[in-house]
Amino acid sequence: MDANVSVEDRANSAPADAAGASTAMPSYSDPQAGQRRYQQALIEAGLLIPSGVDGVYGRSAVFEAIADGLNVAVTALGADQRAEVMRFPPAMSRQDFEASDYLKSFPQLAGTVHSFCGSDRDHHRLLARMEAGEEWADEQRPTRVVLTPAACYPIYPAVARRGPMPPQGLVVDVLSYCFRHEPSIDPARMQMFRQREYVRLGDAGQIIAFRQLWMERGQQLATMLELPHEVDVANDPFFGRGGKIVADSQRELKLKFELLIPINEGAPPTACMSFNYHMDHFGQVWTLRTADGEPAHTGCVGFGIERLTLALLRHHGFDLSLWPKDVRATLGGL
Amino acid sequence: MDANVSVEDRANSAPADAAGASTAMPSYSDPQAGQRRYQQALIEAGLLIPSGVDGVYGRSAVFEAIADGLNVAVTALGADQRAEVMRFPPAMSRQDFEASDYLKSFPQLAGTVHSFCGSDRDHHRLLARMEAGEEWADEQRPTRVVLTPAACYPIYPAVARRGPMPPQGLVVDVLSYCFRHEPSIDPARMQMFRQREYVRLGDAGQIIAFRQLWMERGQQLATMLELPHEVDVANDPFFGRGGKIVADSQRELKLKFELLIPINEGAPPTACMSFNYHMDHFGQVWTLRTADGEPAHTGCVGFGIERLTLALLRHHGFDLSLWPKDVRATLGGL
Repeated sequence: MDANVSVEDRANSAPADAAGASTAMPSYSDPQAGQRRYQQALIEAGLLIPSGVDGVYGRSAVFEAIADGLNVAVTALGADQRAEVMRFPPAMSRQDFEASDYLKSFPQLAGTVHSFCGSDRDHHRLLARMEAGEEWADEQRPTRVVLTPAACYPIYPAVARRGPMPPQGLVVDVLSYCFRHEPSIDPARMQMFRQREYVRLGDAGQIIAFRQLWMERGQQLATMLELPHEVDVANDPFFGRGGKIVADSQRELKLKFELLIPINEGAPPTACMSFNYHMDHFGQVWTLRTADGEPAHTGCVGFGIERLTLALLRHHGFDLSLWPKDVRATLGGL
Repeated sequence: MDANVSVEDRANSAPADAAGASTAMPSYSDPQAGQRRYQQALIEAGLLIPSGVDGVYGRSAVFEAIADGLNVAVTALGADQRAEVMRFPPAMSRQDFEASDYLKSFPQLAGTVHSFCGSDRDHHRLLARMEAGEEWADEQRPTRVVLTPAACYPIYPAVARRGPMPPQGLVVDVLSYCFRHEPSIDPARMQMFRQREYVRLGDAGQIIAFRQLWMERGQQLATMLELPHEVDVANDPFFGRGGKIVADSQRELKLKFELLIPINEGAPPTACMSFNYHMDHFGQVWTLRTADGEPAHTGCVGFGIERLTLALLRHHGFDLSLWPKDVRATLGGL
């Protein structure tokens, strides 16, 4: 089961999705109106800069200061984890990506990178098509890289290449821009956004304990940030007719929890953190081995940096100087 | 003229390229051997983490600390610029990208993002092709986004959307991962790498003065970092048979200078900063207007964060505690 599409919420994509929620949700008559209002307010305040494409925005200095502050807070919270820091660019090997089964579960979200590999003559044809207003990007050829779908994806094959892990397993600290092809006016549903994660690799017991610890710490962080929140069991947006069965099974096995915070007025709360147990799925597909040669189990806690930033701006306002002193201190003295 | 493929050097790509250099270069018998040696040393030291694709690497905590230190140093150097900070994700609107003429000049380097947009049935076919080991990525459809080719590209159309600029023009501070499709074993030629830039938008006189100032500051920074360096006129890697003519014209008009630092043993020095004057090219293609309605001129100084990090590691060694005290102070007290 491909449980690692972290920081994706079922609740905020479309009203119909909320049917899957386990708790009784209030009814949301027009979530899009609230999303649009918040998107416009952020743009008018200069916090987000439009790019001409829904879900792709520039960030202002203030937005980035909050995002940096969140990373400071997460680092402080994980200081005892002896995590190995790995920072991958927002792309990974297509071969590793193919092995992950992401395309089985979420083909609609993945982004592959294509480039022009032709001759002078091919180049002239490409330009002629572009100038005539025709589609030209289909003259591009697939490259060996794809965009990172979740910040932790590149690290599993990288760790697997080292051979079996030490007996205590491993904690990895990751941060990356991720891509998901889901254009939306919802400012909390970007096509490119950052995930900060701690990833635990080891045996089942180690992962379960890690996830429990971080479910508590996640709530602790939300409390310190003075954000209203609730934790709930969740599922990923599996594709197609078969997707519902997989999603139901994921919920039944409680493989994914999310920490939800209200962001858009009149819309369901948004998943801003997720707590995932992948069982031995990644251990199997990437031949990731524990010290005694068994397929490793893995899990992760993901912090949606953009979503948490938007939640802070929503609840404490656009003027940082007016934010509660304790919240600013938690964010590294913002 | 599309002069803004900053922080790309002609000298370090392949021996034949060095023919374009204006100064007499020593002969480099086997640059690839030096590139391979440095790549392997960085991987063995854990500074770079292989991804299975040449030019796509994870970075260690130490590598990132140096990169962060470089950004601190650049920020300090530009503190008087009253720059507006804009941080775009590593993708931009395909429509804006098409307008830029990048595809005329550098089609071989661009990366477009493609996604699956089909039905359950199409999904089964895609998976069947992947499982049979066939190419499947050509079932993807082009999306509305492309990868950012140079950190400043997204900002020109964003500024243009605001209408005419104020009389003093604008300085923008940008940082982004960029993509160039040029797989290489040279650790200083990555497919995904970060550019930090200051971008000047205004009239011709403002741009020329800005570029002159930053050519001096760039050398000052290299001196403070105790890195051997030289500044030279340069050209971008224009595509195809017509490319050489455009490149020659770019050199003749002195539109691009680079600050070169030796990185790979036995190979030509690598462009680690670039100082570019785009004349009114971007002003024309993106309808970017000065206060009096004229097409704006633009220019930028680009700092190749990965290349500068690699240069520091090359010249001061892999043990940061042994680096010169002044260098560490310049990097924010690393």
